Amino acid sequence: MTKKQVRLAVVGGNRGFGYSKSCELLSDIVEVNAICDLNEAVFAKWKQTFPNIRTFTSFEKLLDDPDIDAVLLATPMQVHAAQAVQAMKAGKHVLCEVASAMTIEESWELVETVEQTGAVYMLAENFCYTRSAMMIRHMAESGVFGELTHAECGYVHDVRTATHDAQGNIKWRGEMMRDFNGNNYPTHSLGPVSQWLGINRSDSFDYMTTIVSKPASQSDYFSEIFGPDHPGSKPEFWKQGDSCLSLIRTKQGAVIYLRNDFSSPRPFNYLYYGLQGTKGSYLSGRDIQEEPLVWLDGRSPGKSYLGNAVWSKLSEYAGEFEHPWWKSESDRANAVSASRFGDYFVMKEFSSAIIQNRSPDFDVYDSVAVSCVLPLSVQSAARGGYPASFPDFAKNKRNSVRAQPETGGENG
Amino acid sequence: MTKKQVRLAVVGGNRGFGYSKSCELLSDIVEVNAICDLNEAVFAKWKQTFPNIRTFTSFEKLLDDPDIDAVLLATPMQVHAAQAVQAMKAGKHVLCEVASAMTIEESWELVETVEQTGAVYMLAENFCYTRSAMMIRHMAESGVFGELTHAECGYVHDVRTATHDAQGNIKWRGEMMRDFNGNNYPTHSLGPVSQWLGINRSDSFDYMTTIVSKPASQSDYFSEIFGPDHPGSKPEFWKQGDSCLSLIRTKQGAVIYLRNDFSSPRPFNYLYYGLQGTKGSYLSGRDIQEEPLVWLDGRSPGKSYLGNAVWSKLSEYAGEFEHPWWKSESDRANAVSASRFGDYFVMKEFSSAIIQNRSPDFDVYDSVAVSCVLPLSVQSAARGGYPASFPDFAKNKRNSVRAQPETGGENG
Repeated sequence: MTKKQVRLAVVGGNRGFGYSKSCELLSDIVEVNAICDLNEAVFAKWKQTFPNIRTFTSFEKLLDDPDIDAVLLATPMQVHAAQAVQAMKAGKHVLCEVASAMTIEESWELVETVEQTGAVYMLAENFCYTRSAMMIRHMAESGVFGELTHAECGYVHDVRTATHDAQGNIKWRGEMMRDFNGNNYPTHSLGPVSQWLGINRSDSFDYMTTIVSKPASQSDYFSEIFGPDHPGSKPEFWKQGDSCLSLIRTKQGAVIYLRNDFSSPRPFNYLYYGLQGTKGSYLSGRDIQEEPLVWLDGRSPGKSYLGNAVWSKLSEYAGEFEHPWWKSESDRANAVSASRFGDYFVMKEFSSAIIQNRSPDFDVYDSVAVSCVLPLSVQSAARGGYPASFPDFAKNKRNSVRAQPETGGENG
Repeated sequence: MTKKQVRLAVVGGNRGFGYSKSCELLSDIVEVNAICDLNEAVFAKWKQTFPNIRTFTSFEKLLDDPDIDAVLLATPMQVHAAQAVQAMKAGKHVLCEVASAMTIEESWELVETVEQTGAVYMLAENFCYTRSAMMIRHMAESGVFGELTHAECGYVHDVRTATHDAQGNIKWRGEMMRDFNGNNYPTHSLGPVSQWLGINRSDSFDYMTTIVSKPASQSDYFSEIFGPDHPGSKPEFWKQGDSCLSLIRTKQGAVIYLRNDFSSPRPFNYLYYGLQGTKGSYLSGRDIQEEPLVWLDGRSPGKSYLGNAVWSKLSEYAGEFEHPWWKSESDRANAVSASRFGDYFVMKEFSSAIIQNRSPDFDVYDSVAVSCVLPLSVQSAARGGYPASFPDFAKNKRNSVRAQPETGGENG
């Protein structure tokens, strides 16, 4: 591809609209060319922002259009993999909202389709590109944490109001809670951690085990809102337990604790992360406001084995360890990320990878590595915590000579 | 037993000395009658505090002495179970430092010996009786957290300096790190959590799974202190990985995350706890100084599902939820607990149970329930995270009619 601007179609106009600001800022490399939605009512706001945008109600017709280079899939999670495969086979590049796939079979199909078509496939894992996630990545890659042994992460976010409409009908998030028992949203937590640990670079996931609590808070809530006679007011209506806990071990011997909780009442913490190495430690806040902490041997106050180590605020290390992407473009990224995390860098990296004909930073191997925790966690939990092995999705990547992204510097 | 003062022998004069202050304060119900140690040099400090104390260098001779009612075992962990069984068979009551036992077989032997002899056996699990642990227990028992679904806890404490002497010879803690790969110190973390969840009361542990990271920080440290030629400077010298992570599921469907890390460099957090129910949440500090937080539906600011719940400091609820034990005796408990946690209440409860001929608050069933995580974690980790079932140690407790402690009120 030699031209300098990616012609992008957004599929799923409501959720996809969160990327409109990023696309405006990146108009030198990406043009929002088309919008596709079953509900034509969402087209209006797109036309206001992008007057020349074309509109589609058929995904198939959109894929037939030769003036579209790439699609952003902002559709319900259950159809992501099938739509991505269909799009790549039609010659389109794919940026897909989380998660990539619901099953191991779909994950393999994604990998094989990328390998066969040469399409650029990237997961829109925007939590990887927040300022603090990228700073930790920069610190981890620079070695100040030493050898990495432990990470913790979790998505603790009461989304019970999003599981139903005003009449109490179950929406797709509610369907996930009703029909699924495992970690149905692992990528925002595991995405950054997988980058810090060098998954698919210097390490890979080996096996995992999952247990889930009973369901309790979801039915409590339905009873409070819709009364005790609503079917959702009975705990047995919901397969998904309140807290889903997973342990993962990597082939290099690091261990990860992963929690998912969509219904327990408490201050949100969907930005729960921690990292431990032989030279330092990082721990996020106990809610999304509290400041992350870091301790680095030789830089932070005290000596651990003498018992006088004291946390510093992560922000105190920004001068030295701000990621180059944030250092050079914090104004633009902040203009978007206040509510949308690392969206700006997601869109920039995806478009740049297409223009430069290279793999994106969070490629299909990284995407399925974190997404396949969905089916593996269900399988492990159903078997009483029996360990499940990660498939070796990246076996062909290790032999590949395709150009890789350089996150150490500019991605533009 | 009708007399009003328990005649106690302390076995292991160094570590046991931590209880001397509690015994002084409790002289109306406990008399330190004898001290037993292989090293006679430790007798001096005991004689200074308790002028009439008798001294033994033989555990067997001590057990033959008819003027001793009970023993405090403050010996290395590896001999706890055998000494406890021996003492109970000799007619003594036993207060045992953590953990109770190293194996499942030893755990069963403890249970059977208590059932056969009628001795009072209590684990000196002093972390259960800190002010905050008891406040959370009081809150959990009063129902303000709602139905409990999730707990988290951990012992993150760099004790590398305690694994060797000045010449670099390995001491018993180092031997544990060298010979063991699992959670070799679970009770301070799980003890309070087991009480909050009502283990052996309204619930019981069902199964658990464990993974451990590679060993790295321990050899790093030996290399730094003793140079690269010390055997401990090689990672393979140590079986124990840096971070040991376990998941536990209870029969009532609550889940627990448990971490143990004795060697990673960072600010200590051996007081890491959290609890989640359908009505509220608790989370300790990120180190031992930071204030614990709590959020209770209807009492704390905000509503979780509306996205505006805000933590309160746990201390703000002390007026309403201070545990009765702390409310009535905080001066005495604080006089001891500054460095020794809940030791005062451990000694008071143990002595009171003997005098009142009843089960202690942390009885043999509670003790082996948390202690058996040692062998179960080793077994699970060695099998790549395969789940291990908890033995039903308390099967006879459920049929027992022996008087139970009342922690809702006074224990004196």
